[in-house]
Amino acid sequence: MSGLENTPFDELVVGMTATYTKTVSEEDIKLFAILSGDTNPIHLDEEYAKTTPFGGCIAHGAMCAVIISAAVATKFPGPGSIYAGQEMRFKKPVRPGDTLTAHLELVEKKRRGNIVLINNEIKNQNGETVFLGVSTVVAPTEKVVAKPVELPRVELFD
Amino acid sequence: MSGLENTPFDELVVGMTATYTKTVSEEDIKLFAILSGDTNPIHLDEEYAKTTPFGGCIAHGAMCAVIISAAVATKFPGPGSIYAGQEMRFKKPVRPGDTLTAHLELVEKKRRGNIVLINNEIKNQNGETVFLGVSTVVAPTEKVVAKPVELPRVELFD
Repeated sequence: MSGLENTPFDELVVGMTATYTKTVSEEDIKLFAILSGDTNPIHLDEEYAKTTPFGGCIAHGAMCAVIISAAVATKFPGPGSIYAGQEMRFKKPVRPGDTLTAHLELVEKKRRGNIVLINNEIKNQNGETVFLGVSTVVAPTEKVVAKPVELPRVELFD
Repeated sequence: MSGLENTPFDELVVGMTATYTKTVSEEDIKLFAILSGDTNPIHLDEEYAKTTPFGGCIAHGAMCAVIISAAVATKFPGPGSIYAGQEMRFKKPVRPGDTLTAHLELVEKKRRGNIVLINNEIKNQNGETVFLGVSTVVAPTEKVVAKPVELPRVELFD
């Protein structure tokens, strides 16, 4: 695995962009349910979900928050960032199997507190916007190259 | 398991409150890392984390988003709610083992679109505020009692 490298405050320029892609699997939705304790059948019981206005299972809305958080922490600005705040608007449902691409763009730098504002938009594989948001981040002041942690393997038993 | 019962729009009253509690384990932090792809060592490598200003491992900030999302979806207003938006401010780090209690309070009802605004505050076991936010939710118009999904058992293999 290569290192997680950041872009320190002084190197950040308004207009810089980054992307982060993740396919949301059925297993991801189960993991989110386990992590959150959100056992709502709209996310996991297809038969039930078909009877709702969504017409089938959807991912938890905050799955998009998980993706944005990872994009900020690992890519832009990356390690050493302190996540101070986030605004989110959920625009369209995310379905199991959807491939989501988060687009990040630096829109403001505040010298005081080294704070940066990063616009976020998440689109699905059909180009539909499913999420809009703004991250408030205390950018790192030093260059950091962090060694990514090797994640454990996960297995689910029904 | 008892049913997940909602409070429909007409029964919601400004000032109503609800709480949701979760202890954030080391396993939860690993699950978040797997789910998000955020392999930043600040969350999982104690030795590395000690060298940072946090002085030890911390949970991913968006763990609080996961908790608020579950509180809205399962308790208040509960099933049938459509999560439209969320503002979040991360006030203090969350550490493995912390017990977090989310306090939700209905602060506004908009007849148009059945939208409700719900203030959120998450406190840790020491009474410290770690998170402040506001959820925007399209409240359900009908009574729903949903059968919670039985979650699979999860195992992690290092």
